[in-house]
Amino acid sequence: MIPFQAPTEEMNFLLRQVFDAAAVWQGLPAIAELLDLDTATAILEEGAKFCAEQIQPLNQPGDTQGVSFNGLSVKTPDGYAAVFRQYAEGGWVGLCGEPEYGGMGMPKMLGVLLDEMGYSASNAFTLYAALTAGAALCIHAHGSEALKALYLPKLYSGEWAGAMDMTEPQSGSDLRTIATRAVPQSDGSYRISGSKMFITGGDHDLTSNVIHLVLAKIQGSDGISLFLVPKFKVTADGEIGDANGVTVGAVEHKMGLKGSATCVMNYDDAEGYLIGRANRGLVCMFTMMNYERLSIGIQGLGSAQMAYQLSASYAKERLQGLAAGGSPTGAKADPIIVHGDVRRMLLNIRALTDAGRALAVMTGMQLDKAKYAADSEEQQQATRFAALLTPVAKAFLSDRGFDACVTAQQVFGGHGYIGETGIEQLVRDARIAQIYEGTNGIQAIDFLGRKLVGDNLATVTEFFSWLQQQQSCDEVFASQKQQLQQLQQRFVDVIAAVNQQKHDQPALINAVAVDALDAFGYLLYGHFWLMMADKSLKAAAQLPVAFVQRKQQLMQYYFAKLLPRVSLHLDVVTAGDETIMQLSADDF
Amino acid sequence: MIPFQAPTEEMNFLLRQVFDAAAVWQGLPAIAELLDLDTATAILEEGAKFCAEQIQPLNQPGDTQGVSFNGLSVKTPDGYAAVFRQYAEGGWVGLCGEPEYGGMGMPKMLGVLLDEMGYSASNAFTLYAALTAGAALCIHAHGSEALKALYLPKLYSGEWAGAMDMTEPQSGSDLRTIATRAVPQSDGSYRISGSKMFITGGDHDLTSNVIHLVLAKIQGSDGISLFLVPKFKVTADGEIGDANGVTVGAVEHKMGLKGSATCVMNYDDAEGYLIGRANRGLVCMFTMMNYERLSIGIQGLGSAQMAYQLSASYAKERLQGLAAGGSPTGAKADPIIVHGDVRRMLLNIRALTDAGRALAVMTGMQLDKAKYAADSEEQQQATRFAALLTPVAKAFLSDRGFDACVTAQQVFGGHGYIGETGIEQLVRDARIAQIYEGTNGIQAIDFLGRKLVGDNLATVTEFFSWLQQQQSCDEVFASQKQQLQQLQQRFVDVIAAVNQQKHDQPALINAVAVDALDAFGYLLYGHFWLMMADKSLKAAAQLPVAFVQRKQQLMQYYFAKLLPRVSLHLDVVTAGDETIMQLSADDF
Repeated sequence: MIPFQAPTEEMNFLLRQVFDAAAVWQGLPAIAELLDLDTATAILEEGAKFCAEQIQPLNQPGDTQGVSFNGLSVKTPDGYAAVFRQYAEGGWVGLCGEPEYGGMGMPKMLGVLLDEMGYSASNAFTLYAALTAGAALCIHAHGSEALKALYLPKLYSGEWAGAMDMTEPQSGSDLRTIATRAVPQSDGSYRISGSKMFITGGDHDLTSNVIHLVLAKIQGSDGISLFLVPKFKVTADGEIGDANGVTVGAVEHKMGLKGSATCVMNYDDAEGYLIGRANRGLVCMFTMMNYERLSIGIQGLGSAQMAYQLSASYAKERLQGLAAGGSPTGAKADPIIVHGDVRRMLLNIRALTDAGRALAVMTGMQLDKAKYAADSEEQQQATRFAALLTPVAKAFLSDRGFDACVTAQQVFGGHGYIGETGIEQLVRDARIAQIYEGTNGIQAIDFLGRKLVGDNLATVTEFFSWLQQQQSCDEVFASQKQQLQQLQQRFVDVIAAVNQQKHDQPALINAVAVDALDAFGYLLYGHFWLMMADKSLKAAAQLPVAFVQRKQQLMQYYFAKLLPRVSLHLDVVTAGDETIMQLSADDF
Repeated sequence: MIPFQAPTEEMNFLLRQVFDAAAVWQGLPAIAELLDLDTATAILEEGAKFCAEQIQPLNQPGDTQGVSFNGLSVKTPDGYAAVFRQYAEGGWVGLCGEPEYGGMGMPKMLGVLLDEMGYSASNAFTLYAALTAGAALCIHAHGSEALKALYLPKLYSGEWAGAMDMTEPQSGSDLRTIATRAVPQSDGSYRISGSKMFITGGDHDLTSNVIHLVLAKIQGSDGISLFLVPKFKVTADGEIGDANGVTVGAVEHKMGLKGSATCVMNYDDAEGYLIGRANRGLVCMFTMMNYERLSIGIQGLGSAQMAYQLSASYAKERLQGLAAGGSPTGAKADPIIVHGDVRRMLLNIRALTDAGRALAVMTGMQLDKAKYAADSEEQQQATRFAALLTPVAKAFLSDRGFDACVTAQQVFGGHGYIGETGIEQLVRDARIAQIYEGTNGIQAIDFLGRKLVGDNLATVTEFFSWLQQQQSCDEVFASQKQQLQQLQQRFVDVIAAVNQQKHDQPALINAVAVDALDAFGYLLYGHFWLMMADKSLKAAAQLPVAFVQRKQQLMQYYFAKLLPRVSLHLDVVTAGDETIMQLSADDF
């Protein structure tokens, strides 16, 4: 397997030229005092090095060995614990955490790029850190001062890890029916009893404590509340205390992500502490969920990037057949990169991955503005845009990520189906990103039902105008710009029609949501390609000639070969829900 | 896991109503004397029973246990050998084999349906039989009388198994560079030396002998020849003799299909017997390959059918959320089949699988006519149509099959990612069908380059006319018929343009082939849905009311939601190869 090379040139291009991070950060005082572009570049380089040298070597052995469970506790694959310690000591877990509690205070706009590298190097390993950072985010947003002071420093430092405990056998996408109970105690704490399943990182040997955020119902109430339930109780001075009635019931055997522990968790009168208000647990949990949703989208993106590197490298080495029209070198067999169909596969991956990275960075940027912007109008707008983009980032990045892995596997031919090339592991690992943290169907319903028609298209219209302002495009791109505008108008018209029909056709939103999200995703990527082509041309003096040219060529490829998918998905939305709903359940 | 139920109602409908097998078989004397519709139905029922009761129970344990290799020989998972013996004794391996040598002489039009059931029940198990039947086909078509007499009866009876030994490390899609050598001996035999890889069923304990069909170059020649190389030599009276210098070098660790042995094979002066003429081995091998290609398409189809059953059953049981507009039963949670997005996923699988079965049966029918038709014009036309349809059946059925498994996995949510539901195994098993027996990219290039433009669209035009004649559609389908005709005309125009451009743009065929094949596949499925809707309506008196209604509803779904894909793929073909070929290899 080739060593992972983080695409830092692409990352710097997005930060510097496409999204003008310098200007963005200038507008966010809390960031500006910590970070400039050169520091950002240095952080990217440092992260790239750690991912390539420390994390990636764990990935394939970790898949083969998997996690093990002895009935009491979970052991991660060899090497995970030592590298996680280094990773934590390097400050990577707390990269975007609050400086007040020991975090590094970096913007998400930068954090997404480090996340991507981590997932490229190892899906399974990186997930432990992502959950920890997400748990910290939730505790910071909703926890009491006492909880923050006690738990955040240890989470940011990676001494402890976090987990999100929501699912129960009867409650997956639908959390109304959870049965885990919380009994109030006289000291203000709660006793938690019940059982959860599919708990990623529910137990492991990477850290000395695991901090569970558990959804439960307070005795006598049907509302859902959120509790912090540590594996080991924590003393008042922040040290590990007694075991807390939190045990592992089983570890799942999964298709992939075998280095990540997916646990059944049991709580037996475990001590828990309310986070946020009683019966408002879903709101609190969604703070973590939204964070994780972006992270899981980036799992797809990182997987796609690694899949691209593996398959492009293989295509340049593997000799099979001759170029159409004869070998350019007169060789007996050419590298398969000469074949149009192999190029088509690689270009599909590349064009979608580069644009996907732009989506990740832009979503990160909106989160940063929502958190740090001094101007309240800007702050509120960014909050709306982050809410609009989060389900798209989760679903579209993870769907395209899985597609990318499968396509890359196809480039390998038969060698793609055996373990040693590493690509089949990526396919297995990336698949889960379409499912967990809310299936991509759930994301699409959130996107269409709440984010698009929930406010009668107000936010999406505002977003399209804002996007327009980012694009003071060169004349050479006039035809692409016009093409996008026409497609965008059609998107708005189609969604407006859905908005009108939704009351008479209650099943409509659910039935056409996935195609609505896909149409939006491919349209948005068209904008990103236009921006990347334009900004690279404008910055041609500072960029390598080949880089600028490639951006133009990939933009042309995207518009010729992938943008047509917008119309297909809009056609499918327009076809409505009649043919979907008319069959009786028995007819399936 | 739910027990597999072969879709015999659908299968009988295709034979009886859609393709009028009774009339077809009347026109093929060799078939007519062996088979009528009632016998066919009885064979389907018998096969369905065997697949459900004997084969399916092996599938999940076989995946967990996998094949094992002790350095000398391969052991299949527990139960495989005993069930294979029963399967062979039931005559299933030789179902479509030559009666002259002990085969049952059944038409492929029926055989494809039994293949589908087998793959639904277990991809890994059924593959051993498929390769054996394919090897027999090749030996029958090209082998000497002596070879036929000695080997065919034992292959048809399933006492021995077959394998196809083509790939070498440096020779996969491109066989020009194979290095395995054959040295002529004075007795007319050859000594084979070399090594092959990715040999499915290269060794196992299901049968007492494995008959390898090996591609090699005769000493002093660069042409490729085909040899029969048995694992054990066979005495003149057909008994097992000495070992033959055929050994297993290794067994691959694969993403799936773990019950199927994928071997590195070594030949050390192994005795081999020329099949067909020297230096004409590829022609002979393609007899087997074309057979296997259809079979591998059906691996995709069978996987899709099983994926549908698993996911539809789960969707009717799993309670999550409420129907849009309120629960129809007033329950606290409804089965997820009420949700539009879940229905969309199931309908995509169902609509493509039912039409896929029609493709399999129609391709089988052409093969039967090509083999048995008394009328030579009909026979030659069928040969052309079978050649046109084979790459489509291989690629489109296996691509849609994998999609179906992934979609079905999504219906399961988190439960789809863990082993126990069985769906993740299907995803892993079905993936290989897109790769082996010629990748789907290779199929597409064959389809567009040879089958469509190779004769300036003569065959495809003839095929479309023939298809038209099959459809004396009812007036109620006028709009669908018109829609298909317009799309078909556009398909012909787009491919005709490719045909014109191909000389100036040598890379064009390779670059747009996959989209051309997909456009054809979705168009063809439109025809099949029209035929199924029409024929079910015409035969409404003999069919259950719900069956006829479902066919109308699925046809409407297909036209509304899936047929639009034809235009997308044609758009992509029309966009040509410029944006694909302009990047230099270094830019990837």
